[in-house]
Amino acid sequence: MIDLAHELPAGDVSHAAYQLYAAIPHLEEGGVVLAVVDPGVGGSRRALAVRGKKLWYVAPDNGLLSLAFELDPIEAAWELDPQRFTTEPVSATFHGRDVFAPAAALLASGQPVSALGLEVDPGSLVRGGLGISRSTEGEVLTFDRFGNAITNLRPAAMPEAVRVVGRHIPFVRTFGDVPAGEALAYFGSSGLVEIAINGGSAKESFRLLPGAAVSLQIAEEEPPLLAPG
Amino acid sequence: MIDLAHELPAGDVSHAAYQLYAAIPHLEEGGVVLAVVDPGVGGSRRALAVRGKKLWYVAPDNGLLSLAFELDPIEAAWELDPQRFTTEPVSATFHGRDVFAPAAALLASGQPVSALGLEVDPGSLVRGGLGISRSTEGEVLTFDRFGNAITNLRPAAMPEAVRVVGRHIPFVRTFGDVPAGEALAYFGSSGLVEIAINGGSAKESFRLLPGAAVSLQIAEEEPPLLAPG
Amino acid sequence: MIDLAHELPAGDVSHAAYQLYAAIPHLEEGGVVLAVVDPGVGGSRRALAVRGKKLWYVAPDNGLLSLAFELDPIEAAWELDPQRFTTEPVSATFHGRDVFAPAAALLASGQPVSALGLEVDPGSLVRGGLGISRSTEGEVLTFDRFGNAITNLRPAAMPEAVRVVGRHIPFVRTFGDVPAGEALAYFGSSGLVEIAINGGSAKESFRLLPGAAVSLQIAEEEPPLLAPG
Repeated sequence: MIDLAHELPAGDVSHAAYQLYAAIPHLEEGGVVLAVVDPGVGGSRRALAVRGKKLWYVAPDNGLLSLAFELDPIEAAWELDPQRFTTEPVSATFHGRDVFAPAAALLASGQPVSALGLEVDPGSLVRGGLGISRSTEGEVLTFDRFGNAITNLRPAAMPEAVRVVGRHIPFVRTFGDVPAGEALAYFGSSGLVEIAINGGSAKESFRLLPGAAVSLQIAEEEPPLLAPG
Repeated sequence: MIDLAHELPAGDVSHAAYQLYAAIPHLEEGGVVLAVVDPGVGGSRRALAVRGKKLWYVAPDNGLLSLAFELDPIEAAWELDPQRFTTEPVSATFHGRDVFAPAAALLASGQPVSALGLEVDPGSLVRGGLGISRSTEGEVLTFDRFGNAITNLRPAAMPEAVRVVGRHIPFVRTFGDVPAGEALAYFGSSGLVEIAINGGSAKESFRLLPGAAVSLQIAEEEPPLLAPG
Repeated sequence: MIDLAHELPAGDVSHAAYQLYAAIPHLEEGGVVLAVVDPGVGGSRRALAVRGKKLWYVAPDNGLLSLAFELDPIEAAWELDPQRFTTEPVSATFHGRDVFAPAAALLASGQPVSALGLEVDPGSLVRGGLGISRSTEGEVLTFDRFGNAITNLRPAAMPEAVRVVGRHIPFVRTFGDVPAGEALAYFGSSGLVEIAINGGSAKESFRLLPGAAVSLQIAEEEPPLLAPG
């Protein structure tokens, strides 16, 4: 059992979705991922078990898995029905303990998913507006604990610069490529564009909020030289 | 070995007492609980080993175990005497490392408790004013990391409302039962009454402090109809 | 595998160096310590494997190991060359994942260090100005999560008092030796002089910063009595 993360920002589905996205490539095929950030607990949101191409997931149906699905496409999904798999009382405010963890434990110990709930249409899953952009327009997804902004942008080539909240920020390889206190954009450790201040906090200095629009400036290819006649 | 909690609020005995209370029902019988929040370290407070009906406890004698004892009654208690079980130097400021952890490890590996210290009267243990109330009057024990207030109230029936710092707060089943930004009271995941703001922090919005008085308003039963004749 | 610490203060090499210093005496001989606080990631700082007298270390060459070396002297050092031991892409901003962790795992599983890089002169390692002082003059290294200031002072005898930011603070055995709200100095759990406020935060109350000068006042020995005659 691997503890990927605890103490995530309260109620921040985007942040958790990113953490999961960053972890997927490093997890072993066939494993069961238990992911719970669940501000809608006790309400009408569904509880899910999902089979991806690589991994299983147990999570609330609130977008938390949206970014994971970009790396590990959904094959099938089930709505958890706690009455099928637990005789313990289910609290109205802590399904992480009472619904999701028991379901994940049962899956991991070989229980068939059909014992946990009924299959549902994968197309019906909530996406929460979360997705990776391969164009030049995207947004700030969340922040890491250094105050670096993580965007949903995953361009195929290295941009020249990034524009966010009216600022023009050079795109470089790493922190030391700009002086201390200066802003930079770069490919973060998961391949997404990030925006930081060397030795500081982009979140605080730029008063960035999740959802802030970010656009990439891509180097124009030089027109080919016309070979003389 | 299970890590129940680290990074608890510094010196906050009530908070840790609640965390322990929440964990007791989920721990395996016969296990050894090591619990250290110890603002009196190096002073005259005793270091204890306690045998409850279900579990063993190793902790400072400062009330940290009071709520646990509501679920797991004390059978016997011993005052730890480090000279009996460690030849390492004991620092004056970190008994978690130098006294409590070694004692818990020895107990867990089968050492008889008599090798750790002398038996003391269970009635002499410090309670620190901590206890569960089954009446309609209680107080705020502590807060969770979402800013929800956890009270020491455990009524037998669902109240209609809660009164705290002059406010009248409806008692509902879960967060989504009130609009975003509105206050609610509900049974938390450990069966205690909690007070929250849907999507916000009751601690901050109401400037609640531990110890704030909380009273429950219970639905009056209708007087029985007088059958004619 | 032991998780010594996560969630250390961002970019704070001194803090991490102290945490490592505090852990060294409790680790098993021959183990491999993976330590990464790495504000210079992707730049020109070297990545190291170091053999101490007691333990192996894998860390960036930025002073992070300086205090550990006071307890566990360097025997030899190597500069890690990721091309020798990983075929995975190495990000420019997360060498903890891509360089240091794989190197530590290989060492711990018995790979010879010569497969990880070339030997370098131990005298060339960056010390970052970090060291333990056995004189009466030193400085604040860092703070713990209670706001206690940890200094780099390790005097042989118990001082009478400590002077910091113009204040004269009594040197006592433990917190309870001064009234609540009063400042004290004492030997912390690692044998270094610490400065605290009983029940408060020395960091906040005294607005202390890392590097603040600290001096010890040692009891003067009484002049020997002149024997008459």
